[in-house]
Amino acid sequence: MQNFEFHNPTKLIFGRNTIRRIGKEIREGGINKILLVAGGGSIKKNGIYQKVVKSLKRSKIEWVECWGIQPNPILSKVREVIGLARRTQVEALLAVGGGSVIDSSKAAAAGFYMEDVWEAFEEKESLTRALPLYVVLTLSATGTEMNPFAVVTNEYEKKKWNIAGPALYPRVSIVDPSVQFTLPWKETVNGALDAMSHIMEQYFMGLRAETTLAVDEGLFRTIVEMTDKLKTRPDHYKSRASFAWAATLALNGISRAGQGTGDWASHGIEHGVSAFQPKVAHGAGLGVIFPAWILYCQSVNPPIFKRWAKKMWDADTVQVGVDRMRAKIRSWNGATTLQELGVPRSQLSKIASHTLDYGMTGNIKKLTYHDIMKILNLAYAA
Amino acid sequence: MQNFEFHNPTKLIFGRNTIRRIGKEIREGGINKILLVAGGGSIKKNGIYQKVVKSLKRSKIEWVECWGIQPNPILSKVREVIGLARRTQVEALLAVGGGSVIDSSKAAAAGFYMEDVWEAFEEKESLTRALPLYVVLTLSATGTEMNPFAVVTNEYEKKKWNIAGPALYPRVSIVDPSVQFTLPWKETVNGALDAMSHIMEQYFMGLRAETTLAVDEGLFRTIVEMTDKLKTRPDHYKSRASFAWAATLALNGISRAGQGTGDWASHGIEHGVSAFQPKVAHGAGLGVIFPAWILYCQSVNPPIFKRWAKKMWDADTVQVGVDRMRAKIRSWNGATTLQELGVPRSQLSKIASHTLDYGMTGNIKKLTYHDIMKILNLAYAA
Repeated sequence: MQNFEFHNPTKLIFGRNTIRRIGKEIREGGINKILLVAGGGSIKKNGIYQKVVKSLKRSKIEWVECWGIQPNPILSKVREVIGLARRTQVEALLAVGGGSVIDSSKAAAAGFYMEDVWEAFEEKESLTRALPLYVVLTLSATGTEMNPFAVVTNEYEKKKWNIAGPALYPRVSIVDPSVQFTLPWKETVNGALDAMSHIMEQYFMGLRAETTLAVDEGLFRTIVEMTDKLKTRPDHYKSRASFAWAATLALNGISRAGQGTGDWASHGIEHGVSAFQPKVAHGAGLGVIFPAWILYCQSVNPPIFKRWAKKMWDADTVQVGVDRMRAKIRSWNGATTLQELGVPRSQLSKIASHTLDYGMTGNIKKLTYHDIMKILNLAYAA
Repeated sequence: MQNFEFHNPTKLIFGRNTIRRIGKEIREGGINKILLVAGGGSIKKNGIYQKVVKSLKRSKIEWVECWGIQPNPILSKVREVIGLARRTQVEALLAVGGGSVIDSSKAAAAGFYMEDVWEAFEEKESLTRALPLYVVLTLSATGTEMNPFAVVTNEYEKKKWNIAGPALYPRVSIVDPSVQFTLPWKETVNGALDAMSHIMEQYFMGLRAETTLAVDEGLFRTIVEMTDKLKTRPDHYKSRASFAWAATLALNGISRAGQGTGDWASHGIEHGVSAFQPKVAHGAGLGVIFPAWILYCQSVNPPIFKRWAKKMWDADTVQVGVDRMRAKIRSWNGATTLQELGVPRSQLSKIASHTLDYGMTGNIKKLTYHDIMKILNLAYAA
């Protein structure tokens, strides 16, 4: 078992009808004026925006709005958020959305105090402070609502990279699972695959921390079971809520305690995929890459891969475990090959180069260009 | 699934050779002078005291010492700690020990700002502030190193009661599992029974939060498995570490998220037992009371009790589950009856009255005097 620190200061408020508390939380944080950051406008259709605004008004919080954050969020938009935050002199950000909106807000909160936020992604400048960030989550997937990470794509250089630092923990995050009743099915599936991948990145580090492995097995199986249930009953509160809380725990420190820092090569490769194919959702990409990575890397540490097959899929071999995972993804109408995701074979070498350049090439097995190409080919038409 | 908040600000530092970091953590917290609170002196024999002192010196932290906290800690001693803290004008407390030392320190940290700390236990005065508390844990059991609870016995009135409040979260807790290699076997078992009980108090609330039930099952089974391993290899680091982290998670908010506030009647009854029999360790008392409570209360919500029997003990009925739990406790050389613990039958009615007076009579089933007497009799000579 590796040494670790667990220090997660985010206040998570979870449950039905909790969005109306956002104004009071901001007020109690000593904030008078915020920048509300949001996506394409779905929160106006489903009423979340109206609830947020009502709560802000009741607590006499002034606000400015910035709309238009896209999936696989881009650097130019982050710069726009920073500029607006400076011009309007807000004291905090309020992200109302999913991972893209929250990660863009995190990057902007840090970039507010920097000359060029991308320097932090390049690790040329350290990330020491950020504007306070409040969150209303609308899509459970990335776990960003309770962690110190953010991923943004530099669209000029085709780099999908991340930043991390204690200053990026949201101060307060509100998760009302009932607002996810109306999500398109595909987004629920992509969220499940993302959260499952977060668990696997930590789990495959080895037979290190029994407690964490047992917790991870519970989280992983719960996500799979809840996704199955949501397929026929998207508005089943208990399933949405269990899914949402498991997705938060999948990347808030609990799923990795004592397991080390995680592998993250599958994420590294997937970032390459969606850097060149921005229409590929992060979770969908992971659902294709991770099984291929498992098949390619299982020989490095057979006991942990066998345990995964047994505990997660009741399978006696890793191959059968992977087969069952792919069958499960297909049963959710998800893709299991890069081909299905629309990635041209000619792009594989660029993707491999991006992964190497990014540096997230794995801790269980440090992948070379050759290794990554092998994995991409295994994923291409599985 | 119940609504909940998760907001645990404690910084937990976990692993080998982490005790030497305590001085730096205190210094970084802006503290110059602390009161070191400890028990009977075992930390001098096993070298923990020396490590702490070396670290304090290196970080130029001034300190005063208060020794002699006993198991089932008492109010008069808490008052002594408060008096010393005031006279010596310390800025924080440093608890070096197990649950008793930490809980006494928590009570003193709050009592520092009150005329009479017992008023908070009686809920006549609210607990709004406390001195900062730093912790070096020497015995994994109560979870107090990462929660806002403290239990103290008022020895004059024979009341073993608790206090709770956000101000009681330790600021930093250091858990080095290797310092527990030399614990007497009995203390490891009592720690296991305490942590298992914390999980059960939340779990039996019902089939509410699937994620939390799955996590709880993993934690519970891990504690049982690690205790089995520690019986023959008390100095097996990985087992000690997995045990320690599971015990922390058993009462830091994770094991109850979405399950409601927990039942706590078994704890209420056990507090009565050890209020009159201070030599009965809390965990040992719970190991006797909880199985009797399960047998008495199972009919209130059969599905969750059956699930417990199946998932924790691979048993098809609750009776077999309880039988296996008691057999497991006996295999650890623990007691399964009040008689073995040395409780005279004549004391049962006093214990029942204490439980009622205390008010922790359960949320799954609200116990009457009659119910508690039935449970005590079931536990008397099982």
